[in-house]
Amino acid sequence: MKASQFFISTLKEAPADAEVVSHQLMMRAGMIKKLGAGIYNYMPMGLRVIRKVEAIVREEMNRAGAVEMSMPVIQPAELWQETGRFEKMGPELLRIKDRHGRDFVVQPTSEEVITDVMRQDIRSYKQLPKNLYQIQTKFRDERRPRFGLMRGREFTMKDAYSFDRDQTAAKASYQIMAQAYRRIFDRFGLSYRAVAADSGAIGGDLSEEFQVIAATGEDAIVYCPDSDYAANMEKAEALAPQGERKAAAQPMTRTATPGKATCGEVAELLAIPLASTVKSLVLATDELDAAGKVAKTQVWLLLLRGDHDMNEVKVGKVEGLAGFRFATLPEIEDHFGCKPGYLGPLNLKKPVRLVTDREVAALADWVCGANEPDFHITGVNWGRDLPEPELVADLRNVLAGDASPDGRGVLAIERGIEVGHVFYLGTKYSQAMNATFLGENGKPQFLEMGCYGIGITRLPAAAIEQNHDERGIIWPDAIAPFTVVLCPISPDRFPDVKAAAEKLHDELLAAGVDVILDDRGERPGAMFADWELIGVPHRVTLGDRGLKEGQIEYQHRRDTAASSVAVGEVFAFLKDKLAA
Amino acid sequence: MKASQFFISTLKEAPADAEVVSHQLMMRAGMIKKLGAGIYNYMPMGLRVIRKVEAIVREEMNRAGAVEMSMPVIQPAELWQETGRFEKMGPELLRIKDRHGRDFVVQPTSEEVITDVMRQDIRSYKQLPKNLYQIQTKFRDERRPRFGLMRGREFTMKDAYSFDRDQTAAKASYQIMAQAYRRIFDRFGLSYRAVAADSGAIGGDLSEEFQVIAATGEDAIVYCPDSDYAANMEKAEALAPQGERKAAAQPMTRTATPGKATCGEVAELLAIPLASTVKSLVLATDELDAAGKVAKTQVWLLLLRGDHDMNEVKVGKVEGLAGFRFATLPEIEDHFGCKPGYLGPLNLKKPVRLVTDREVAALADWVCGANEPDFHITGVNWGRDLPEPELVADLRNVLAGDASPDGRGVLAIERGIEVGHVFYLGTKYSQAMNATFLGENGKPQFLEMGCYGIGITRLPAAAIEQNHDERGIIWPDAIAPFTVVLCPISPDRFPDVKAAAEKLHDELLAAGVDVILDDRGERPGAMFADWELIGVPHRVTLGDRGLKEGQIEYQHRRDTAASSVAVGEVFAFLKDKLAA
Repeated sequence: MKASQFFISTLKEAPADAEVVSHQLMMRAGMIKKLGAGIYNYMPMGLRVIRKVEAIVREEMNRAGAVEMSMPVIQPAELWQETGRFEKMGPELLRIKDRHGRDFVVQPTSEEVITDVMRQDIRSYKQLPKNLYQIQTKFRDERRPRFGLMRGREFTMKDAYSFDRDQTAAKASYQIMAQAYRRIFDRFGLSYRAVAADSGAIGGDLSEEFQVIAATGEDAIVYCPDSDYAANMEKAEALAPQGERKAAAQPMTRTATPGKATCGEVAELLAIPLASTVKSLVLATDELDAAGKVAKTQVWLLLLRGDHDMNEVKVGKVEGLAGFRFATLPEIEDHFGCKPGYLGPLNLKKPVRLVTDREVAALADWVCGANEPDFHITGVNWGRDLPEPELVADLRNVLAGDASPDGRGVLAIERGIEVGHVFYLGTKYSQAMNATFLGENGKPQFLEMGCYGIGITRLPAAAIEQNHDERGIIWPDAIAPFTVVLCPISPDRFPDVKAAAEKLHDELLAAGVDVILDDRGERPGAMFADWELIGVPHRVTLGDRGLKEGQIEYQHRRDTAASSVAVGEVFAFLKDKLAA
Repeated sequence: MKASQFFISTLKEAPADAEVVSHQLMMRAGMIKKLGAGIYNYMPMGLRVIRKVEAIVREEMNRAGAVEMSMPVIQPAELWQETGRFEKMGPELLRIKDRHGRDFVVQPTSEEVITDVMRQDIRSYKQLPKNLYQIQTKFRDERRPRFGLMRGREFTMKDAYSFDRDQTAAKASYQIMAQAYRRIFDRFGLSYRAVAADSGAIGGDLSEEFQVIAATGEDAIVYCPDSDYAANMEKAEALAPQGERKAAAQPMTRTATPGKATCGEVAELLAIPLASTVKSLVLATDELDAAGKVAKTQVWLLLLRGDHDMNEVKVGKVEGLAGFRFATLPEIEDHFGCKPGYLGPLNLKKPVRLVTDREVAALADWVCGANEPDFHITGVNWGRDLPEPELVADLRNVLAGDASPDGRGVLAIERGIEVGHVFYLGTKYSQAMNATFLGENGKPQFLEMGCYGIGITRLPAAAIEQNHDERGIIWPDAIAPFTVVLCPISPDRFPDVKAAAEKLHDELLAAGVDVILDDRGERPGAMFADWELIGVPHRVTLGDRGLKEGQIEYQHRRDTAASSVAVGEVFAFLKDKLAA
């Protein structure tokens, strides 16, 4: 490819609304152009990256036995009504009416459509397993789209769906996909982790996220440097503390803490560790009657150590707390006789259900609110001042340094960007849509499903968050828009430079190297700056003086200086670099 | 590829709503599956064809210097309001409101978006020419979607847009595209014609349609077997008749034609050629005032020979007739004092503007309505019974046998399916959107544009309309879902058959042949029927008896019988067939 025949459009400055580096660099490198909030044109330079991502995904999906198809972007609402998602999903589901007033959605995923396809086609267990995928435009009407392709509204996703005869087979299909994802992410050339994720109501361990490691990532990833344990923050278990609880050493004391409404302030005032304080969070669950109205409300008191954060997914899994909400101020005052800031499990006005984090259950001589403004209670002890906690669970986010759940060292935390997810669905959709097949016993059974996504257009943004410097993007070879750029210096003045560049270009092209020759006639400074911004990993510079000495210059995008290569050896040198 | 690892789903019967053969066969061959009216899943077998079409289009577009990008499916209304298309387009433009109530459209084409991209990027004539294209999902909310992929609502189109500094350069870009289209359609392996099409208000000859020839085609294509003249029916010119008009021979006579309200009936009653009758069509044009209300209406009488059909495009080009409509019954009675069926240019109640087809202007002794119920006038002659016609134009569709406009023989007519269109746009969009660049003279100028479409998902349907028989589809090699199918007979009983099939499969695959091995274990009859329905062009059958004699069988989908090929020669034999 010659640059004059391509479309190169770099910008000195990123637009003001580009908050993260990948968004800034993709805009500046001319990879994307904004059309509306969360809606981007994929410009030629950006589309080349996307196409390479697609090609790798497609190859590995095919290799894993998945078969490509394509489902419509605009889908009739009927199927979405069968599963209830048409009503249940929030405004991020873009709904449309056609000219006849019929309801449609713009697909955010395609579970309904693929289940509809399969319930028509699969008659017998003999036709299973099947795994079908598509690489297709999706839309999610995000309330606040931002970060460029990271959280856009229109995006491209690879979504695959597996169909199996039973759970065992479904889990095997899941594992095949999980392995294929590892190959895919290995091939991208990015540093990533496959982390265990919460699998919702289904339970089990059959949900993994593929996270590209980046300091700017939205997600916290928990891992153990001494083992292969990795999970996302929602999922990572905080083990119960080891050993016996200390014996009570302090008397229970009503202590004035005027104006100190947080654990941090109380710990500071009393000169005690934050880990000796206990925070009280008041939750509520509503029971609905047949008409959907609240028939009964249960108020809960959740106890967490002052230095710990609540993990909403874990809390939602405690029996009785599914679908919980935070209690209202009237509900709190009604039960505690006190405003938040000084709440605690003692001296309640009305009974509440108590749920205690494992770490709080192991505390002795702790501090909590007195249910009285400007007062806390110190030296509180289980079994003495209040009954031993009945409902104890893991309710908190883990911290770096916590013991690894696999018992092999301590946990570390880093940031990641989710770009893939494999998930065992079970019969959630096949039951809702009555998608059955005849089993070996001749009886109809529900299809066992899994779903597997990769954010095709998000991946380039994640790659940039991980790989960039102050000059621009640094692409891994596998997904670079071009692998090699040839930069001739003043080719119009020096015919030997022009000829050498074109010869090398043609040789590399013939050898299947994705090369671009910059024949735009830019000055060297501007030319280098463009390619450093765009992030082509391998650069070859051809100058008249060097050529006269039989030398050209090679510089990897990560190198701080160029190295000389003999003209006769440059082809082999490059092939060697690209194979590395 | 092995069939057991693919997704094959054939049907014995096509659904009742599949009216045309391509729709029936694509459904039966499991290439598409209906999701809603005009909305289809592209199943794995169909997607393979679509991907091959895309690949050919992409290669030739790139070769012609066009650069691929991708524009959003969901586009903000603002740009469409700039050109007025948001308001002007009918309900086939699918309009959406997002969660914030902002207006969007689902793209039917992307002139607005690409013009917006280019007005941001193109500063100087030095950056021109540019040609950008995308292969992307489109939506047109057809009132009555039908014929499967032929007239769907969601479809895939390749749309390219060229940008040039002036008309000369724009016309050169147009010609490059027209040539690329010829290469593309040649490569598809289909019988097609590039036909001149009407270029609307812009004029000139810079509009061509690419029509796949098929007896079932919606469009009439006019061509000259003795030259390279070809045009669509709208465009094809009917030349003025040669030679002098005959002298009047009959007296003008009011003739009773009770109940004979059509030219055909009158000709039969009077025992005269239909070509001696003249039909009267009453049109109207409205002048609007500033408020958009009708200020003035002009009624027109259009005279056509009884055996000719009106060509609306040609009529709309007559000065004063742009935007014409058919007159209402009151308007007709007001001017003619008579109902339709007996209208004519004589004895008018109120004056009308007369516009006469070239053929009518050349008639002598013709017959028209008397403007009196149940009466016609015979023996009418120009210059004697009414003034010589002032406004004479080509108003009719040509007929087979008409003289070719290039003067080299007579016209023939066949049916076609439009699958491509190249069009010179001029500055229609760049003016509406103020898309300018600095010309060589340093002054801002409007970008000169062209647009170029190919119906990617329509093409397979057109290919089938052209290439099928009673057993199913017959794909050209270039766009077949698989090029070769290997059919082993009873491989489970005969290990030599299984081994030979797998060896040949692996050899062909390694040689880059798109081969599928049917290892499903179907009986021969069902297996052959499936592949004949699916339409794979080359079939190799491996049986135990043949193999024992060192023979396998080859049959092209168009062959009526199989031919034997020596096992050792089959690879070379097939390579030879595929190269043909």
